[in-house]
Amino acid sequence: MTDLSTIVVSSRIRLARSLSDHVFPELLPRKEGNQIIKSVYKVLDSVGDFKLYTMQDLPALDAEVMQEKHLISKNLLKNTDSGAVILSSDETISVMVNEEDHLREQCFMKGLSLEKAYEALNKIDDALLMGLNIAFDPTLGFLNSCITNVGTGMRASVMLFLPGLTLSKEVGNVIRNYQNQGLAIRGVFGEGSDAEGYMFQVSNARSLGVTEQDIIAKITSSAIKIAEAELVARQKLLVENEDELKDRVFRAYGTLTNAYIISSEEFMKCAGEVKMGIALGLIRLNDNTLIDRLIFDALPSTLTQMSGEEALTEKEEKKYRAQFVSKTLRNARIK
Amino acid sequence: MTDLSTIVVSSRIRLARSLSDHVFPELLPRKEGNQIIKSVYKVLDSVGDFKLYTMQDLPALDAEVMQEKHLISKNLLKNTDSGAVILSSDETISVMVNEEDHLREQCFMKGLSLEKAYEALNKIDDALLMGLNIAFDPTLGFLNSCITNVGTGMRASVMLFLPGLTLSKEVGNVIRNYQNQGLAIRGVFGEGSDAEGYMFQVSNARSLGVTEQDIIAKITSSAIKIAEAELVARQKLLVENEDELKDRVFRAYGTLTNAYIISSEEFMKCAGEVKMGIALGLIRLNDNTLIDRLIFDALPSTLTQMSGEEALTEKEEKKYRAQFVSKTLRNARIK
Repeated sequence: MTDLSTIVVSSRIRLARSLSDHVFPELLPRKEGNQIIKSVYKVLDSVGDFKLYTMQDLPALDAEVMQEKHLISKNLLKNTDSGAVILSSDETISVMVNEEDHLREQCFMKGLSLEKAYEALNKIDDALLMGLNIAFDPTLGFLNSCITNVGTGMRASVMLFLPGLTLSKEVGNVIRNYQNQGLAIRGVFGEGSDAEGYMFQVSNARSLGVTEQDIIAKITSSAIKIAEAELVARQKLLVENEDELKDRVFRAYGTLTNAYIISSEEFMKCAGEVKMGIALGLIRLNDNTLIDRLIFDALPSTLTQMSGEEALTEKEEKKYRAQFVSKTLRNARIK
Repeated sequence: MTDLSTIVVSSRIRLARSLSDHVFPELLPRKEGNQIIKSVYKVLDSVGDFKLYTMQDLPALDAEVMQEKHLISKNLLKNTDSGAVILSSDETISVMVNEEDHLREQCFMKGLSLEKAYEALNKIDDALLMGLNIAFDPTLGFLNSCITNVGTGMRASVMLFLPGLTLSKEVGNVIRNYQNQGLAIRGVFGEGSDAEGYMFQVSNARSLGVTEQDIIAKITSSAIKIAEAELVARQKLLVENEDELKDRVFRAYGTLTNAYIISSEEFMKCAGEVKMGIALGLIRLNDNTLIDRLIFDALPSTLTQMSGEEALTEKEEKKYRAQFVSKTLRNARIK
């Protein structure tokens, strides 16, 4: 079996649900929004260890950190009127309230774990379906504010690390191929089709006329096929361009461990190279999960929070990032 | 007094001399050329510990190493017919035979030492004037194949390290100012007016109608004035751009200690940054002369010779350079 651990970073299931007895969040009066938050929290509190954070009360920096961790969306961040998020204690499950829809349930797991994530989220979803008036049409399925979320209301996605396919310039073909099969592939960091740090997200483009199991099976099998192509591409690069790969990886490591000022974008690029170096066995760290954690920890708000300051200027942020990243990587490297 | 040690790298005096009883080297028959070599060597052998190398017998790689060390010129390198160089045992004095002129005497010294270099070379020159028929005109002075070398036949030059003036973009004005005063300033490495590694050579443009003492005094005082401006520029940069300077220096150090493949040009640029870092006290090495030696040792032919191989492909050279530079710098750094 293919070793996916250096390719599939994480899996995510998201379910969109709307309440039939309230107007969509965009038009929702504040008071009514707060009633919804309460009723959603009541259900979740009865099934597990959940914590409620309202966008109104949550300090801006904490909210931005949650957004960088993908626990909440940028959209929710802005809704300081009636937006809220309810998080499980281990932060694998998050339920956004009054985002585009009344409910956006999410479950994150490491590796290729869409089925497990769906199982976990399904329990929560069942409780919410029982406890609230969720809009559902027997023919269409779940009804939501955007037509693309009608039906299952589900988006299943995996985050893939694809340096081999990127450097061999095959990733464009892969993207087009899976787009033709009804999937969406895009770079996770960076603008447009750029993928800083070689990170790509593969998800279903359709929510209607398919079952949840179909979507999960399709994304899972696609992820495995892409991962296999990625491994072939990496092996080919190692055989044909070993010196250039080493140069690329070691230079990036040199930048991350020596720069005195570093932007989030440059960090992300270099971290992608170092992550590739780890995957190819060119660099060894004493902690297998360190580079993935570092990629999130070095994001602007998370970093600012870590610094203990209320806010950092852009320059201070870049200096603190350089210092934090350098120290972390130097201490973790096994020679 | 201004501390020039981090600015004036080296001083060089060169004297051009022609023999009145032979045609210029360009038209010289091989046999006659060899006779000249013999007679020059005879004189030098009688006044000191000199070694003769003919371009005909010197292995190409050894000749290229000499050229990289500035002991011989590219011009001499090509004259495998009758070119030769006679070197003092400490390699501070080199006498090229049958270069553009029959004799090109040179003396190299570290730091700002034009007078000392001239003194040392003058002794050799006196012996050569006594032992050979050197072309001399009472009105014009020494006669040579090129009109620019008629008169004293002397070129005095100093190599200056000017990162402060370069980064503050003042170096263009400095160059124009001294050009107007009859001096020549140019980048030592790199093409045209580019100065890779921040190295500039200041020399006299005229050889005729001035005395040796005039030339030496002018170059020396100019070098001191430029050095003072350089120190001011460095101080200003440190005050106004300390973070950016550190970033620049540490990144270059990171590249030099981590790259797996590095070209001579990129090495030179990075070495200039590291040399600046040393001058500013941002990086400490356990050997003050190491970076200057490294700058010459990492040149293509010197590096190839050091590798012990007869020849290196371009790729092998870049890999060997990266390895050699990284090891040398890592071992020398004081944290």
